[in-house]
Amino acid sequence: MILDWKKIALDIYNELKDKVKKSDKKITFWAILIWNNPASVRYIKQKKKWADYIGINFVLKRLDENITEIELLKIVDDFNNSEKITGFMIQLPLPKHIDKNKVIEKINSLKDVDWFHPINQWKILIWDKSWFTPCTPAWIMEFFKKENINFVWKQVTVIGRSNIVWKPITNLLINAWATVINCNSKTPNIKKFTLSSHIIIIAAGVPWLLTPDMITHDSIIIDVWFTIINSKIYWDADTKNIDLMGAKITPVPGGVWALTVAMLMKNTLKSWGII
Amino acid sequence: MILDWKKIALDIYNELKDKVKKSDKKITFWAILIWNNPASVRYIKQKKKWADYIGINFVLKRLDENITEIELLKIVDDFNNSEKITGFMIQLPLPKHIDKNKVIEKINSLKDVDWFHPINQWKILIWDKSWFTPCTPAWIMEFFKKENINFVWKQVTVIGRSNIVWKPITNLLINAWATVINCNSKTPNIKKFTLSSHIIIIAAGVPWLLTPDMITHDSIIIDVWFTIINSKIYWDADTKNIDLMGAKITPVPGGVWALTVAMLMKNTLKSWGII
Repeated sequence: MILDWKKIALDIYNELKDKVKKSDKKITFWAILIWNNPASVRYIKQKKKWADYIGINFVLKRLDENITEIELLKIVDDFNNSEKITGFMIQLPLPKHIDKNKVIEKINSLKDVDWFHPINQWKILIWDKSWFTPCTPAWIMEFFKKENINFVWKQVTVIGRSNIVWKPITNLLINAWATVINCNSKTPNIKKFTLSSHIIIIAAGVPWLLTPDMITHDSIIIDVWFTIINSKIYWDADTKNIDLMGAKITPVPGGVWALTVAMLMKNTLKSWGII
Repeated sequence: MILDWKKIALDIYNELKDKVKKSDKKITFWAILIWNNPASVRYIKQKKKWADYIGINFVLKRLDENITEIELLKIVDDFNNSEKITGFMIQLPLPKHIDKNKVIEKINSLKDVDWFHPINQWKILIWDKSWFTPCTPAWIMEFFKKENINFVWKQVTVIGRSNIVWKPITNLLINAWATVINCNSKTPNIKKFTLSSHIIIIAAGVPWLLTPDMITHDSIIIDVWFTIINSKIYWDADTKNIDLMGAKITPVPGGVWALTVAMLMKNTLKSWGII
């Protein structure tokens, strides 16, 4: 069964839209876009689309891709110091001549709606809920909340070692009292773990690593990652056959990542104090 | 078999002693101690003992326990700005009227030899080895290195959810390509995981949670935590019987934590640029 992930996203957008309507603030979302690579432009367009939908202002500052690191840091500082800017994001990746970590560390953590600043990542470690939510993994938790899943006694297998996904996910799950098994592409006999797990989150970047024989009919599979081979996209799970055998699985393409932007908008409303 | 953990610690101290001897710098270790609770005083004495052993200066700044938060933050700032101080630590816990996180976030992360600052915790997440090492979990990794354990294909079960231990440990292990199973005190049938694991790290605070029937003769058990009931100390593992059945286990008391101070001294030498 393919999970109706778009409906979950839409529910969240509608909740946010409602909160914006009830607020008397003129809410603005600020983004910085440094170059023109098609993926970045597409992501920014997505963000504008949903900002429009929930009824908030979208302001984009475009910068030339030859901008120096010093100039960019100066702009980040201006954004940090501006009283009218409550939160902003910089579309990644950055051009190669700029040190990404330097830029991320420069952002005022209280304005870091995209959740990349070390202080914010740390807040997840110490489980401080007052803070911004990590956009990427938060939607997974949001989904589980909507499905009324209680993690006590639940076994979750997380496959993959990517920095943005597994680390915060594992932290969030353990904080929710789940038993979490972290596998990677070198783990022998992953099937041993997946067969006994209630939930499987896969972000390994290995085409069709997860197949129907590795799961049960009751499994819930969250497929986060994909690989491109000869212009064709392969997701980590064999979605079609897993769907046929009856387990619940996220839709691809356009699946799980749909919620990332929703979380970004949620953080933006947080930065405005209306959530 | 009880692991000779003290020998491992001594080996590290001797390596550090050697480095100090070869250096022409007059190395100093700075610590701040705020009150007189017996545990804190004992920990500080331990640190002085080993600083003496490796041949570095130990400077302790003692503060009255009625110090205000503002006064303490001012002192931290002085330490941050002092050119002669390359690294320093504040003995935890702090008195209740002081916000611990505020103080920790105030420490210059480049001088945070005790590894508590968010930036340093984050460096572990992104696996930046150039940085200070987290004192508490680093000794576990140091031990595995000395035992020549390669984590690829290895299954490690970590029991417990404490912030200082499992999170950095899990991160360090996954970065080393281990398959890591995170259990907690609510996990049903922990035995299922421990029986098939090469290594078990336990920090749950549940007396004798790990018993000989839950492991194999080849297991390596690292017991990190204990509980005090009616003035008697109970460790998480049934050390005596696990030793009798032949598996390798850390010594208690005075076991694993012996290496924490060694890691602190190592970070201190790092802050002086002689490692």
